[in-house]
Amino acid sequence: MSVTAHAIVYENYGNPTQVIKSHSYKIDLNNLKPEEVVLQTLASPINPSDIVQIAGIYPSRPPISVDSLPEAKTPIAVTGNEGLFKIIAKGSDVSEFQIGDWVIPSSVNFGTWCTHRIHLKNEILKIPNDIPMNQAATLAVNPPSAYLMLNDIVKLQPGDWFVQNGANSQVGRLAIQMAKNMGVHSINIVRKKENFDDLVKDLTSIGATKVISQEDVGTEFFTEFLKGKNVKLGLDCVGGAASLAVAKVLSEYGKLVVYGSMTGQPLPLTVDLFLFKNITVQGFWLSKRLKNEAELKVSSTNAVVKLIKDGTLKESNVNETILKISELTDAKFLDTFVTAITNSNSGKQLIKFE
Amino acid sequence: MSVTAHAIVYENYGNPTQVIKSHSYKIDLNNLKPEEVVLQTLASPINPSDIVQIAGIYPSRPPISVDSLPEAKTPIAVTGNEGLFKIIAKGSDVSEFQIGDWVIPSSVNFGTWCTHRIHLKNEILKIPNDIPMNQAATLAVNPPSAYLMLNDIVKLQPGDWFVQNGANSQVGRLAIQMAKNMGVHSINIVRKKENFDDLVKDLTSIGATKVISQEDVGTEFFTEFLKGKNVKLGLDCVGGAASLAVAKVLSEYGKLVVYGSMTGQPLPLTVDLFLFKNITVQGFWLSKRLKNEAELKVSSTNAVVKLIKDGTLKESNVNETILKISELTDAKFLDTFVTAITNSNSGKQLIKFE
Repeated sequence: MSVTAHAIVYENYGNPTQVIKSHSYKIDLNNLKPEEVVLQTLASPINPSDIVQIAGIYPSRPPISVDSLPEAKTPIAVTGNEGLFKIIAKGSDVSEFQIGDWVIPSSVNFGTWCTHRIHLKNEILKIPNDIPMNQAATLAVNPPSAYLMLNDIVKLQPGDWFVQNGANSQVGRLAIQMAKNMGVHSINIVRKKENFDDLVKDLTSIGATKVISQEDVGTEFFTEFLKGKNVKLGLDCVGGAASLAVAKVLSEYGKLVVYGSMTGQPLPLTVDLFLFKNITVQGFWLSKRLKNEAELKVSSTNAVVKLIKDGTLKESNVNETILKISELTDAKFLDTFVTAITNSNSGKQLIKFE
Repeated sequence: MSVTAHAIVYENYGNPTQVIKSHSYKIDLNNLKPEEVVLQTLASPINPSDIVQIAGIYPSRPPISVDSLPEAKTPIAVTGNEGLFKIIAKGSDVSEFQIGDWVIPSSVNFGTWCTHRIHLKNEILKIPNDIPMNQAATLAVNPPSAYLMLNDIVKLQPGDWFVQNGANSQVGRLAIQMAKNMGVHSINIVRKKENFDDLVKDLTSIGATKVISQEDVGTEFFTEFLKGKNVKLGLDCVGGAASLAVAKVLSEYGKLVVYGSMTGQPLPLTVDLFLFKNITVQGFWLSKRLKNEAELKVSSTNAVVKLIKDGTLKESNVNETILKISELTDAKFLDTFVTAITNSNSGKQLIKFE
């Protein structure tokens, strides 16, 4: 028995929609090495880091090699770092997993934009298959980032506050929900747009304590609001003036954590923040944390699964594209991912396979 | 017996050379409370923080009160935070100090720009009187700042490196000498000016391992130089592009310490420094450290005295003005300090009393 697999690959870094290609190859399900498993993809999300990885501007990148996939004629890298898979075949020395188990990658640079992959059993992590598929497929990057930033940097107590910009991002929405569950209040800085009132309602409905526009951070009204509140932690995924806004909301000795940069702008942090308010600034990059502390992958995944199961984390809106594997062509497969990359600015994209 | 004392005071914050006044008052040496001491000033330095304090833009400020000095008719504050004094009289319950002892303030906002002050015995700290007077007079601010930044933030081992901008500042020169004594190498970033070669020679002569212009930090030559060097600590007293230069020189997981801002410009720190290089940024402000951890004042003073005695710290150039107390008038006293403030941009000013 064999399956025909399709994968999105690239030979050179460049404009993602232009450099990605579809590569197809056969996997023989009856001829596996002892520790190998064959995975069939259930869902692959498109993350911003996947896209900058293809562009070659992300420091963590999979190898470009003829060994990346079977039947590769030139050196290639497989795209995608996050996804949900089920096991459809396994080698003789794989007792930890059963056929049908749901698994996710245990590390980055996995190559998840594919229909099937052969991996070793130590490269995957089992998760329960009774949680919503979309949450399972997006379990590996954003939820542990939000979880670790809220739990592993400063000790937040019930009644404490944290502040974040990009509050309507995936991580932002997760942080709101997780903080609420911890009894921690959130100040959520968003851009003042036409739909500001709707956004306030929306974020409040998932647990935001306070939603404020970036422009209103310096106002007397808001300064008054902050009095007596201990804002210990600030999360920044925007850069530029939005970083400064988070820093200004922090209380004395607060910690600013930079985990992304939607604008790419430097953080214009003023010296008074360091000298007189004693804030500290550090980065958070999940890939590196997990690389250096592998046990965190298991513990944070377990923590996130628990938060999904107990209802703390609600399903978020995603734009789904469903592909039938049996009807798939290389051209259709490639086109689906090119479209998803193009649309990824206007909402989370998820490719699902049946 | 009594003395006529002169002190530089201000009633309102403002342009320092315009708002300071001279206030004179009598001190009766024979009528002291049990814990009082009468200090005669040996030397008062002019520090940048003294000047911004008078301007009202420094967060730590002495009270403006009629109780600040004897014979005050309006609320005043006494200027100056650093100085060297000798004890000329003491109350009945002062056994810890002898007449003639050299002492320095044990805390900030002491009011040191004066000829004589009455203080309580717990407001002063004894130092040996066999070290050079100019070093003793400038012992309280810059040397403990340099010492604590090099010893109390990251654990520097012999062979490690640190990087700093403003390397020719008072703190910068002290840090070079202290680091050399620790077996720690220094990278010293300075502005490229006409006298660049002289400055390189000068800083090298006091122990600088490497002196480089800010413009040369990004060059291939310098990147090559940095290879294999563990630059754990960066000190920034400039702000703006000079802060970024220090951050760029830091090794992975390095710590950037902001302790001043000659330019007043924000730190344009880019997100890659936090995400991929994992630097952290924090402030160092001696006043606050000493306020929160009083025992540090004694331990850092002792450490600095030891470094002066063992020859690690050389005397630095200062512009001295010597005043004869017996011939002093309020007008002459005020004029001397106005001139010293005006000249403080072109070198360290020290007013000495005979």
